[in-house]
Order: sequence, then structure tokens, then C-alpha cells
Amino acid sequence: MSSGRILVVGLGPGPEEWMTPEALQALEIATDLIGYGPYVARVPRRAGLTVHASDNRVERERARHALELAKKGCVVAVVSGGDPGIFAMAAAMFEVVEQGDVHDRNVDVHILPGVSAMQAAAARLGAPLGHDFCAISLSDNLKPWDIVKRRLNAAADGDFVIALYNPASKARPDTIFEAFALLRQSKSHDTPVAFARAIGRPEEFIVLTTLGAADPSIADMSTLVIVGSSETRLVGRQDGRRPWVYTPRSYGLKP
Amino acid sequence: MSSGRILVVGLGPGPEEWMTPEALQALEIATDLIGYGPYVARVPRRAGLTVHASDNRVERERARHALELAKKGCVVAVVSGGDPGIFAMAAAMFEVVEQGDVHDRNVDVHILPGVSAMQAAAARLGAPLGHDFCAISLSDNLKPWDIVKRRLNAAADGDFVIALYNPASKARPDTIFEAFALLRQSKSHDTPVAFARAIGRPEEFIVLTTLGAADPSIADMSTLVIVGSSETRLVGRQDGRRPWVYTPRSYGLKP
Repeated sequence: MSSGRILVVGLGPGPEEWMTPEALQALEIATDLIGYGPYVARVPRRAGLTVHASDNRVERERARHALELAKKGCVVAVVSGGDPGIFAMAAAMFEVVEQGDVHDRNVDVHILPGVSAMQAAAARLGAPLGHDFCAISLSDNLKPWDIVKRRLNAAADGDFVIALYNPASKARPDTIFEAFALLRQSKSHDTPVAFARAIGRPEEFIVLTTLGAADPSIADMSTLVIVGSSETRLVGRQDGRRPWVYTPRSYGLKP
Repeated sequence: MSSGRILVVGLGPGPEEWMTPEALQALEIATDLIGYGPYVARVPRRAGLTVHASDNRVERERARHALELAKKGCVVAVVSGGDPGIFAMAAAMFEVVEQGDVHDRNVDVHILPGVSAMQAAAARLGAPLGHDFCAISLSDNLKPWDIVKRRLNAAADGDFVIALYNPASKARPDTIFEAFALLRQSKSHDTPVAFARAIGRPEEFIVLTTLGAADPSIADMSTLVIVGSSETRLVGRQDGRRPWVYTPRSYGLKP
């Protein structure tokens, strides 16, 4: 019996201080490293580690490659930014396992969770996800835009805090504009909105605004957008520091 | 100027392999440790660390205590299980900061994110949160049940995967029954459902079932419940192993 296996590793948002010991250990024992170039680049090279970097949007090819290597006995680390279970490699892995044969289904697969982009953004902002929230990917590569619209409307109906992943890309710069147009129809224009880009990395920046005033063009693929619920609010600070953004645990709490 | 500050620390779901280096370091530099007894109990005692354990449901008293200590110059670690930003201490902290005076608002507060219970559960199950999802707390201590109902209905309308936090407690054993009754009205009874209890701890267990067949009485305060979307599915494995549960990234993907 082969000792090959697949470790789908969450690298977290960027800095090593946010990477779990489990993830670090997986990178130490792996024989093969698979992932999108920028994530693979975060992992230190060492003797005995074969590196297979790939382009964006080839998640299934990566998963298929990992299965082939694991069946040969390799210990394969498939790396994702953030948490592999949230809009990342874990789902792609099981899509390929599902479509494979009995040998593919027998491969040992372990998902190693990590801190996701929305959690890093929330931590910097205060506690915007402090109450019921939803996470929606605005990418329409793999799902019809009607489904995205349906979910944005449902999120507004439910008065959820909304974390928007993949808000824009070069191929679809208008998605975030359409999403904001939709949300402006049903939510107060005073709703706090945060654009949180590359949190934890040197180029980190945050723009805090409102749904009415937001300029969606500042969002790119490295940006996580948080749109508040009717309860989400700011708490002012002194000395020119950015206000805290938080959503109370109570509904109808008076400031 | 005082060097006092507050570090709101996510301990993760339990095992040290899921705790970030940032969280571990915070526990090493703190002068004071505040939190609910079972979380405080996870932190090793050492010289120079004053421990203040408290009961459940006194989050604001804990936050107030942390502010008072920080204003005296203490480095206060306020510990939460999972991620403090997700149904945990971070929101309570800002509720108290908001209601405080200018000195309270000037205290340095840092939120240290962690792996949350839904991520740990998802990792063990496969990739159930692999597409759009929402997180709802079923606790009605602080919000009216009508809001919970509104959000459950919206989550079903949007065909989100649903992570249910705080599904039941001794004080309100019926909440999860009411939630399931509501979801059964609008979602297919074949929808995969997982009860994931104490993931990462010695008493970990998982029950995989369907919305129609689920027995809600197995949920307690240590259980995270995941209810699938219409796309969430099982992938069978050999050798009596539990099937994978995952939600594809595509909408309408055929198995």
C-alpha cells in the first residue's frame, strides 16, 4: 500500500504569523508542492521538494496532477491562500476525485484549514462579522450571473453582513459595479462598506466608506469587500486613527 | 503614555496545530488572561500571568474588565475559541468600547484571527463551504427569533450552504428543531446535513445525514451544523470510510 497522500494546505492571508503549525509542518514533509505561482512562491525551497507552479484558473489540472503524484507514493502539498475550503482548492480537489475512478477515490486527502481573507480583513477593521454573515464569490466564471444576483438579493433580504470574494478581475471589471447597483436598490446607502486589500502583506490597504459613496473601481482580485448589515456601525477613535467597524451581537442595540 | 493594550485572541477549535503563531505569541507576552473558563483552561499557566476566568454569557463584563486593566498598563489577552471575530469576543469588546468614554476609545485593541469551528468542520468533511455560504447563530439570547427566521428563510431563498452556530443549549433545546422545521419547508429533504461536534478535540464526532432524516437532538453548544445547498453532494469512498461532502465551485455541475 502506497503512503502517498494529498495535503490541501491553507497558507493563510500572507504573513507566517497567521499560518497554522499544521500547515507549516505539511510544507516540511511534502515531496511535491503544487499551486498557483504566487502561493507556491511563498513556500521556502528545500532539498527533496519538487515544485510545480501553475497559472491561475487551472484548479482541476492541479488537482488531477496531485492525484497522479499521490498514487505514485508522493506526499503532495496543494497550497491555497487563505483557507482552502473557502473559494479555493479544496472544492476543485473533490470535483476531480468525484469524476475519477476507484483508485482516485481511495487516495488519502487531508484538508488543512487556514485563516481566510475575510477573517484577516475583519480583524483589521474591528468586528464587522460579529453577527450573522454570508460569503459570496462574484466570479461568474463557473456560475451564471443570475445565481450571483439571486444570492445578493437574498443576502440583502436577510440583512446579513456580506463578504464579497473575487470582486473584480481584468477579465470582468464590471462585476462589482453590478453588485453594488443591486445592493443599493435594497440596502441603506449609509451602510458601512470596507475594501480590504492584501491584508497582512506589505501592500495592505483599507478604504472605509459607505454603500452610497463607494467607488467600486478600487476593488481588484486581491481585495475583499465587506458590506455591513443594518446594524453594522463605526466607533470613532482619537488621533486620526481609522474608526472601528463592528456588528453588535444584539439586534436593535442602541449606541 | 501607557503601554497597556488588549489582544483579543482566537485560540482556534482546540488543538495547538490549529493555533496561529501570532496567538501563541500573544499568550506569551500577556500580563493578564481573561476569558470563559474552558478557553482559559487551554492556556498554560506561567509566572507573571494573572488569570481571570469567568462564566459563560458575561462577555461584556469581560470586555469592561479588559479595558480597565489595559488602562492601568496591563497587556490583556482576551481569549475566544475559534475566531474571536465570528460569534465571539471581538463584537462584545467593541460594544463596550462604543459605550465607554474617550479613554476607553483610546485603548489599543488588536484582534488576532483564528481558525473558526465551521472551517475545522468543513476541513474534516471535505469542502462543504466550497461555494457561497452563510453563517447564522441560532442563539436568541440577544436577537429576536423573528430575525433568526428571516435569515434562515433568506439563506434558503439564496440556496446558500448554511453553517449554524450555537444550535442548541440546555436553556433552549428546541431552537434547532424549529430551524430544521423551517428549512424543511423550503429545501429538499435530500440536502446533505452534517453535525460536527468538538472538531479537533478528543471527543470529536461527526454525524452525516440529510435534512429529512436528521435528528436535531444530537446538536449541543459544541456542535456546528452544516446544511448543504442544492449543489452540495457526497462522494463515496472505499473501506467503510465516511463519504466526502463537498459543494462544487460550479453551479449545475453534473457528477
